[in-house]
Amino acid sequence: MSWFRNLIQIPTVKSSIRGRSLLKNSSFLFTSLSHFTNDANQLKNPPPPTQYAGLGPTSSTQKPRMVVLGCGWAGSRLMKEIDTKLYDVVCVSPRNHMVFTPLLASTCVGTLEFRSVAEPVGRIQPAISTEPGSYFFLANCTDVDTDKHVVHCQTVTDGVDTMDPWKFKISYDKLVIALGAEASTFGIQGVKEHAIFLREVQHAQEIRRKLLLNLMLSDMPGIPEEEKSRLLHCVVVGGGPTGVEFSGELSDFIMKDVHQRYAHVENYIHVTLIEANEILSSFDDRLRHYATKQLIKSGVHLVRGVVKDVKPQKLILNDGTEVPYGLLVWSTGVGPAPLVKSLTLPKSPGGRIGIDEWLRVPSEQDLFAIGDCSGFLEGTGRPVLPALAQVAERQGKYLARLLNKIGEAGGGRANSAGGIDLGQPFVYRHLGQMATVGSYKALVDLRQGKVSSTFLLYQ
Amino acid sequence: MSWFRNLIQIPTVKSSIRGRSLLKNSSFLFTSLSHFTNDANQLKNPPPPTQYAGLGPTSSTQKPRMVVLGCGWAGSRLMKEIDTKLYDVVCVSPRNHMVFTPLLASTCVGTLEFRSVAEPVGRIQPAISTEPGSYFFLANCTDVDTDKHVVHCQTVTDGVDTMDPWKFKISYDKLVIALGAEASTFGIQGVKEHAIFLREVQHAQEIRRKLLLNLMLSDMPGIPEEEKSRLLHCVVVGGGPTGVEFSGELSDFIMKDVHQRYAHVENYIHVTLIEANEILSSFDDRLRHYATKQLIKSGVHLVRGVVKDVKPQKLILNDGTEVPYGLLVWSTGVGPAPLVKSLTLPKSPGGRIGIDEWLRVPSEQDLFAIGDCSGFLEGTGRPVLPALAQVAERQGKYLARLLNKIGEAGGGRANSAGGIDLGQPFVYRHLGQMATVGSYKALVDLRQGKVSSTFLLYQ
Repeated sequence: MSWFRNLIQIPTVKSSIRGRSLLKNSSFLFTSLSHFTNDANQLKNPPPPTQYAGLGPTSSTQKPRMVVLGCGWAGSRLMKEIDTKLYDVVCVSPRNHMVFTPLLASTCVGTLEFRSVAEPVGRIQPAISTEPGSYFFLANCTDVDTDKHVVHCQTVTDGVDTMDPWKFKISYDKLVIALGAEASTFGIQGVKEHAIFLREVQHAQEIRRKLLLNLMLSDMPGIPEEEKSRLLHCVVVGGGPTGVEFSGELSDFIMKDVHQRYAHVENYIHVTLIEANEILSSFDDRLRHYATKQLIKSGVHLVRGVVKDVKPQKLILNDGTEVPYGLLVWSTGVGPAPLVKSLTLPKSPGGRIGIDEWLRVPSEQDLFAIGDCSGFLEGTGRPVLPALAQVAERQGKYLARLLNKIGEAGGGRANSAGGIDLGQPFVYRHLGQMATVGSYKALVDLRQGKVSSTFLLYQ
Repeated sequence: MSWFRNLIQIPTVKSSIRGRSLLKNSSFLFTSLSHFTNDANQLKNPPPPTQYAGLGPTSSTQKPRMVVLGCGWAGSRLMKEIDTKLYDVVCVSPRNHMVFTPLLASTCVGTLEFRSVAEPVGRIQPAISTEPGSYFFLANCTDVDTDKHVVHCQTVTDGVDTMDPWKFKISYDKLVIALGAEASTFGIQGVKEHAIFLREVQHAQEIRRKLLLNLMLSDMPGIPEEEKSRLLHCVVVGGGPTGVEFSGELSDFIMKDVHQRYAHVENYIHVTLIEANEILSSFDDRLRHYATKQLIKSGVHLVRGVVKDVKPQKLILNDGTEVPYGLLVWSTGVGPAPLVKSLTLPKSPGGRIGIDEWLRVPSEQDLFAIGDCSGFLEGTGRPVLPALAQVAERQGKYLARLLNKIGEAGGGRANSAGGIDLGQPFVYRHLGQMATVGSYKALVDLRQGKVSSTFLLYQ
């Protein structure tokens, strides 16, 4: 018997109160409490001796179990489209929501609220909250055993003392790896400790908090000019779409909010964007020139440089230049996550999980990989697709349909999909790309392949 | 010259770009960067040798300076009503917003958003953002020197490595202490480490995060029943309005959101409210009975007990009973803040700063105290008023008018208010009290004094 059910017997309302306080009747309360005063009582049913519990293989009375690792663009779209009459869905992810990453930069300065860019997994696929065999587990996958069709997981407790990390296993019929990628630091010391990435909601929250804190601290009486300028120097490293969009948002924030609300320090706050090569290198030349012009016009300092070292309050460029900062945002691109690196699966160029044209890991049964963590194997003759939301999202959509088809054809169980016609392979068609540069201006690059080339500027 | 202004010379837009990328012209960029490659350059104007800078006494060309310590109900109402033509307002507080405390409990479970209960100081008194002599300083007051009319302060950096703590002094013409009170722990070990108070927005955020985390953790496969019940056991210590309202909100959350979204664990989650005496002891007897009935009806376990010790995952009552918990909220009332204790001013019964009928500290010039940190001196023959928002708010309003009157009569400067007629002393009239108990039900106690006694129940 759980200690808890003995804590207090709730009397029915009718029997309990007639113009007197129940609490006065303390003997009533302590009688029921006494059930669990003795520690030995609690140990009548001790917890199982192993810490490695889990969900075992599905039986023939259950639906086949699809395990999805990750809930970014790829995993979320997959879960949204999967037919939950055919599969139980189990999602394992260290966060319980999908982030609409293209709008994350706007939340750092209050243009958007955080909850506007985050959608709970349980709302993307309601079966996860309600169906008895479907679950969301707030955990990291620590290993994949493809022979036994099992994933090993460990809970994420984020430094809270609420529970020790808990390990468990989940047997799968189908496994979809959609773990995404990790921010690259290129092994530069101090980046993880002192810079903030811009990939999750908590990163945006941290940026917002630090920006406001620095604005307030810089206003303290007697702060030396140097220190004031340092605190209000926002440095962005990496001139891809994320870095450029964040710089644009910051300069909008400075021109509007700071001038209105922090008038005392408005002349001290500045934004510097450091990039080793070209900003927005994937965009057309003329769009890049336009973006450069716009950023400079809105007061962003563009610096070409390579960061060598990051200290708590300054960074050092390759040529020895020291750049003091108050806020440092790092957005230099992404690379494979540690789990992806550690898996002994065939890899695509760039170290991603190698997949075939049907997004399968061809050497394994029932294993698929989509999104930034996956790339076409060299043998397919296809190039590795860029780490973009539109690639991930369309792979998720394609794979959901493929798995629904497999399920309908009776191939949902582990090792049972042989011989089922998979239909057309996945084909990616690039629809173009966009980036905002602040001041309500954006770039739209609609080039498709290398032949036709169109672009627009919205003003 | 600040290093920062040398970072990059922004060319005018016209001269800079004509169809070419500025970034390609790296020599231009590095010329301007080279100004600060040498550390020695930065030290041409070293910061002042002392770390104790600040705002000196006001001159006759400036407005008199009113310093307000704190921005709760008392300080915020004062700042809102003060005439900024008569005074420059300087607010010193470790948080940059006022919290609408009666609605804080509702934010813990998502009934209200956090920003709905927080109002920035700069919006309460816009002069603080815009007037050259008015400021908000994110800092703690560390000492008050009433002889020199100076407050000593230190910045709050909240563990962020953005800046070392900075000390400064502010000279005042009028000083209003509105520091509020601190949550009482009665010296019980482990409360500060493991329990969450419910007095600030970040407390509500922590409660919300931990509640969701525990809901998700308890759903992990293989978690023992005991552990599941512990994680989902929400314990509230203290049966005053805060504890009761939070318990009510929690039980609403369980009955609605948990049953919808966390169906797997709905039978495990429970709320226990521990109180040493009566719940809602300041309310009328019949209202208390009604509240008790309602709470029990909504599934809240009421326990009479005294907490002796708090461990990371369980608390121990005086009789040795151990109560495992997943979430522990502490709301047992308030006591004087450390600074209030340390000030060598005459105190009221209960250790608050002693004030007279005009809310002055009578032994000092130009010193006032309002809200939870103040209490009438025994010599006034008046009782110390309860630590309620309505007391603080009305004291703030009264004092703003009194100080406006003094300012208009030419007594705004330090040591210049002698002989000015202060008018009527402050009179507090209790307007009654309210508390919600969940399920859209609330208590309203409209008794005034001890004679007439009316009460209402909303259903």
